[in-house]
Amino acid sequence: MSGSLTVVGLGPGDARWLTPEADAALAAADVLIGYGPYLDRIPPRLGQTRLSSDNREEAARAAAALRLAADGKHAAVVSGGDPGVFAMAAAACAEIEAGPPDWRELDVTVVPGVTAMLAVAARVGAPLGHDFCALSLSDNLKPWELIVRRLDAAAGAGFVIALYNPISRARPWQLGAAFEQLRTHLPTATPVVFGRAVGRAEERIAVTTLGAADPAAADMATLVIIGSPETRTIVRPGRTPLVYTPRGAQVVA
Amino acid sequence: MSGSLTVVGLGPGDARWLTPEADAALAAADVLIGYGPYLDRIPPRLGQTRLSSDNREEAARAAAALRLAADGKHAAVVSGGDPGVFAMAAAACAEIEAGPPDWRELDVTVVPGVTAMLAVAARVGAPLGHDFCALSLSDNLKPWELIVRRLDAAAGAGFVIALYNPISRARPWQLGAAFEQLRTHLPTATPVVFGRAVGRAEERIAVTTLGAADPAAADMATLVIIGSPETRTIVRPGRTPLVYTPRGAQVVA
Repeated sequence: MSGSLTVVGLGPGDARWLTPEADAALAAADVLIGYGPYLDRIPPRLGQTRLSSDNREEAARAAAALRLAADGKHAAVVSGGDPGVFAMAAAACAEIEAGPPDWRELDVTVVPGVTAMLAVAARVGAPLGHDFCALSLSDNLKPWELIVRRLDAAAGAGFVIALYNPISRARPWQLGAAFEQLRTHLPTATPVVFGRAVGRAEERIAVTTLGAADPAAADMATLVIIGSPETRTIVRPGRTPLVYTPRGAQVVA
Repeated sequence: MSGSLTVVGLGPGDARWLTPEADAALAAADVLIGYGPYLDRIPPRLGQTRLSSDNREEAARAAAALRLAADGKHAAVVSGGDPGVFAMAAAACAEIEAGPPDWRELDVTVVPGVTAMLAVAARVGAPLGHDFCALSLSDNLKPWELIVRRLDAAAGAGFVIALYNPISRARPWQLGAAFEQLRTHLPTATPVVFGRAVGRAEERIAVTTLGAADPAAADMATLVIIGSPETRTIVRPGRTPLVYTPRGAQVVA
């Protein structure tokens, strides 16, 4: 079998964060498979075909790519950000595990990328400068009680928290509930960063506090970072404040 | 004041993970400042000077860069991986906060990069495919008791754990103690990944289990990932196994 599957991270936003490795992987593919808006970021290449699908059809997209690879094609599944963070690489692995035995013999490569939390953090300084966690707020595939338990554990132990998938039309109340839950652990002055569409023309970054954080400021394209008790804000004249978490830390009460 | 400070993430390993934004930032700098081995990765440019320093002198290096920027220079501090993850961006913010008021008026930019845990994860599949945390195992700047508390919280709530700075000559026992602590929460079959020098010629990736994990397999250049109870290993004939954490999860007992 001479086909291959490559799962490629495009980074968030435009080509400024597309790595040379990702660029080469896109160029080497016979078929590009992905969510339409991600495919739209990639310049067309002669002789290369594209399969666009809905954002929610991750398993079907991964299986389609694996069938093409098993058929001898060089298939590249594209993902925004990093494909290993709440994205296509895990979906591809799940299909390989559940699929026919010959899929385990395929050449599979994951090409990492800048994930959204790193790009949003960079915009405001270094809020992820010390111990942090990344948590998906979607309760489509896990119970809400588990999300609450993870919020409690993370905030209680002093991790900075990056929330992926904070809100959607089908999940309108979860982000507000998460802020409420975090207010039971953290001071109201804890810095909160909303990073919407980072690296794209419609990018909007806002720094606020946990006390003032309004879930309505987020949408599906937003990444939310909630500081730890150590996270600090530096006010700057005529500039947006810097937010950072120092490298040292004290014992959390 | 027309100077600027840019904190640039080179990504781990060689230039395959250097983003176009980082490349442009390096080209635009008058002075490059950083730990010697990071500077060595960057091709020399005419008219550009370099200040190399020891890896432990992060505060002094950040302050030197800020003095140059305040003096009108375009100073770029370089960092391996992502500068916002256990690296130079937080050190720069801390110096700005503690420094003279005019440092707050400087143009400061952080250029994100692929951080080591994403590159190591990509090598084996998608171990960070669902909720995870990043934790520095160094107790130079925080008490060991806090690290144990964070390990307990993360493992107890089902986060995958990426350990940065797992071991050094001055901190020889901490990784073994961390594995022992995690064994009180997690099954011995939990997948563990050692990723050494990812993306460099001397790269070495190993997949093992928490029961068999040997701290001697890690050194200063190693990133260690410990799975959650959901993390799975896919055995493949003639290939290294894939490790991934599925997107869904059940309530952790």
